[in-house]
Amino acid sequence: MKNVIVGQSGGPTAVINSSLLGVFKTAKDRGADIVYGMVHGIKGLLDRDIVDMSTQIKNDLDMDLLKRTPSSFLGSCRYKLPDLEGNEATYDEIFKILKEYEIYAFFYIGGNDSMDTIKKLSDYGEKIKSPIRFMGVPKTIDNDLAITDHTPGYGSAAKYIAATTKEIIRDGLVYDYPVVSIIEVMGRNAGWLTAATALSAGEDCESVDMIFLPERVFDLDKFLDKVGELYKQKRSVVIAVSEGVKVADGRYVCELSDHVDYVDAFGHKQLAGTARFLAGKVAEKYGVKTRAIELSSLQRCAAHITSRIDVTEAFNAGGSAVKAAFEGLSGQVITLKRVSEDPYMCITEPADVHFIANVEKKVPDEWINADGTNIEEPLVHYIRPLIQSEITPLWVDGLPRHLILQK
Amino acid sequence: MKNVIVGQSGGPTAVINSSLLGVFKTAKDRGADIVYGMVHGIKGLLDRDIVDMSTQIKNDLDMDLLKRTPSSFLGSCRYKLPDLEGNEATYDEIFKILKEYEIYAFFYIGGNDSMDTIKKLSDYGEKIKSPIRFMGVPKTIDNDLAITDHTPGYGSAAKYIAATTKEIIRDGLVYDYPVVSIIEVMGRNAGWLTAATALSAGEDCESVDMIFLPERVFDLDKFLDKVGELYKQKRSVVIAVSEGVKVADGRYVCELSDHVDYVDAFGHKQLAGTARFLAGKVAEKYGVKTRAIELSSLQRCAAHITSRIDVTEAFNAGGSAVKAAFEGLSGQVITLKRVSEDPYMCITEPADVHFIANVEKKVPDEWINADGTNIEEPLVHYIRPLIQSEITPLWVDGLPRHLILQK
Repeated sequence: MKNVIVGQSGGPTAVINSSLLGVFKTAKDRGADIVYGMVHGIKGLLDRDIVDMSTQIKNDLDMDLLKRTPSSFLGSCRYKLPDLEGNEATYDEIFKILKEYEIYAFFYIGGNDSMDTIKKLSDYGEKIKSPIRFMGVPKTIDNDLAITDHTPGYGSAAKYIAATTKEIIRDGLVYDYPVVSIIEVMGRNAGWLTAATALSAGEDCESVDMIFLPERVFDLDKFLDKVGELYKQKRSVVIAVSEGVKVADGRYVCELSDHVDYVDAFGHKQLAGTARFLAGKVAEKYGVKTRAIELSSLQRCAAHITSRIDVTEAFNAGGSAVKAAFEGLSGQVITLKRVSEDPYMCITEPADVHFIANVEKKVPDEWINADGTNIEEPLVHYIRPLIQSEITPLWVDGLPRHLILQK
Repeated sequence: MKNVIVGQSGGPTAVINSSLLGVFKTAKDRGADIVYGMVHGIKGLLDRDIVDMSTQIKNDLDMDLLKRTPSSFLGSCRYKLPDLEGNEATYDEIFKILKEYEIYAFFYIGGNDSMDTIKKLSDYGEKIKSPIRFMGVPKTIDNDLAITDHTPGYGSAAKYIAATTKEIIRDGLVYDYPVVSIIEVMGRNAGWLTAATALSAGEDCESVDMIFLPERVFDLDKFLDKVGELYKQKRSVVIAVSEGVKVADGRYVCELSDHVDYVDAFGHKQLAGTARFLAGKVAEKYGVKTRAIELSSLQRCAAHITSRIDVTEAFNAGGSAVKAAFEGLSGQVITLKRVSEDPYMCITEPADVHFIANVEKKVPDEWINADGTNIEEPLVHYIRPLIQSEITPLWVDGLPRHLILQK
C-alpha cells in the first residue's frame, strides 16, 4: 500500500484548498492508493479523525468547487507539537497511527507553526529510522515565510485588499467635505498585506495617501501632523495601517486604547481596534469626519475574489510536495522561486524545513520610504504579478457555491 | 433645446451609476440635446459645478465601466433644501440656473432625503408655473423607501452581505474550539440589510444562528443567554446584528459602550462598535473566543460583486424616469412593482413623490420571529430574487477597472 495523508493547519487562506487539491490529485495521478485527510490537522490525527479524500472529491465538479471554497476544507488546528525531548510518547503515538494507516508520505499545509511540525516529525522520523516522508506545503496570507519568494495565499489576499481599497478610495470621494478613512489590514509583524493597498493606484485611482507597516516604529504625533497636512490639501484622505504597528516603547497602537481581549494558544495577542483608535484621535484633533474600516477575516476567506496566479501556484505547491516525497525527499518544504520578472514566472523548489520553520520574513527596509509613511515602487512591482487573473466563482442561486466536508 | 440635468445624492450604492446611465442613455435615445450632470448634487447645481455627460460617457466601453463603478460617479451631497416658506431666494436661484441651462427635465437619484428635494422643487415649480419636470430615481442600500417593492442598490448590497456572511460562516468552522462571530450590518432603523445574512443558508452552508433587527427591542441579557446555549451546542456560532439595534430605554446598543463620534448634517448619529461591544460582553461572560466583524462601507461600494437583477433594475429606474418626464409627468418617483413571484418579474411605475419622501419602510413584524432572534422564511423569499445573476468586473492588471469623472 502506498497511502498518503494530508492536513491543514493554522489560519486559512482563500487558496489553501487548492494546495489540498494539488496534493490529492498529484498523489492519485502518481499511484497513491488512499489519500487520507486529517480533520483539524495533527490534532485530528491524534484523535484518529481521518477521512478518505476520495469520498470527498468524487468528480471534476468537486475539484472545481474545492478550489473555490474558503476556509480549510479539512478544518485546522493551532496545536503545536511539544519539543522532542521528554515528549517521545506523543511522537510514538503519531508514528503508531501513521503505521496503522500504512502511510508512505505525510503532507502538512500551513505557515510557520506548521513547518515546525514538519521539522519535528521528520527529525523524529530520522531518529527512529522511519521510512515515512514528511513534506511541508507553505500557506499564509501574511507572506512572512523565509526562503520562498512569496507564499501561496498571499496573492489572493493582496488582490482582495487592493480591490476593496480601490472601492473604499472611490467611496471616500463621494461627498464634498473632508473625510479621513483609515483601513486596518492584517499582519502582526510583517507589512506585506498592508503594502498591498498601494496596488489600488492606477489610471483610474489615486492611491492611498499613507501606509504604515509594523516594520517601522509608529509615531502618533507625526502621524497626526501628516494627517493634518493632508486633509487640508485634499477632500478624501485614505490611510492604510497594519494591525501590528507599535509605538517606540513596544506597545501596539491598539494597546494605547483600552482594548485587547484575547491571547491564543501560541501567545499571539488578538489585535483589533488600531484603525478605530487612530480615527478617534484624528476626529478629536481636527473635528473632521473619519471612518475606521477593518478588513477583518475577509482577507483570508474572501474566496469570491481570488488571484488565478495564486490558485495555480497553491495547487502546484501541493503537487510538487507529492512529487518530491515520491522521489524520496523528506523534511523539506516547497518554496516558490521567481525565475523571471518580465514575463513573471515562478517555479517550485524544495528547501530544508529547518531553514523556514519559526523564521519570520519582514518587508525589507529599502522597500519602505525614508519617513516610514509609504512603500517604495519595487515593492509594488514585487506584488503586482501575484494578483493577476481571476477564478470566477461557481454561482448557484445568486451566491458562490462551496464544497463541504461530508462525514 | 431639450436639455436635461441629473444628480446623485445621499450615500452611494454599487448600482447608483447604473441609474445614472439609465437616465443618460434613455434621454439621449429620446432626443435630449444635452444631458448635464450636477457635481455633488444640488449643491453642485447651486455652485454651477455642472458637466456635460457626453464628455464623460463617450462610447460603449465607458458605459460598461460606468455600470461597474462604485460610489456616485458625479459625487454626492448631504445638503437638504430648506423649507419653501421664507427661503424663496434659494429656490429662485435654482430655477434661475435651470433656466440658464435651458433645462427641460430634472432627475435626482437618491434616498429619502433626495426625494424630499424632488418634492420641494416640484412643489415650488408648480407654484411658479415652471414647465420643468422633476423626477426622482430611488436608490438606497437600506431598502427603506415606501411604496416601492424594493430599492435599486439593495439587491447588490444584499448579495455582498450574503456572500461574505457565507465566507465568514465557513471561516468560523476552521478551528476545533468554539468561536462566536458577530457580524455588524448597516441599517439605522430598518433591518433589511441585516436580514440578507439569512440568504447564506443553503445545501452547502448552515445559516447564521441569530439575526437581530432594529425593528425589535434588543435585550442584552436574553442575547447573552441565547449565545450561552448556542456555543455549547455547536463549535461556531455566527450572529448578525444591525448597527441600529436599541435597548428598551431607546439607546443604541453601541451607546452602552463609550463610543459614538459623529453626527451628520441630517442629525443622524454615526454608529459603530455594536458588534465589538457585544463580542466583548460574550468574551467577558463566557471566556470564549469572539470575533467582531463590521461589514463597513464595502456594503455600499463593493462593486466587484453586484446583482445583475439589481443593475438592470437600477438602469430601468433611471430610464423610466426619463420616459415619464418626457411624457409630461413631474413630482413623481419611479417605484418597482413586483408583478410576479415565480418567475420573479418587476416593472417600474411612477408614484407621487409626496407619498415616498421622508417615510421609512421597515421590516414587517410578521417577517421577524416571535422572540426577535431571527427572520421568517417569507423574508428570505422576498430577498432571494434580488441577488440573482452577476455582472463580471472588467479586470485590468488584476483589479476591477472604474470610470472616473474628468474635469
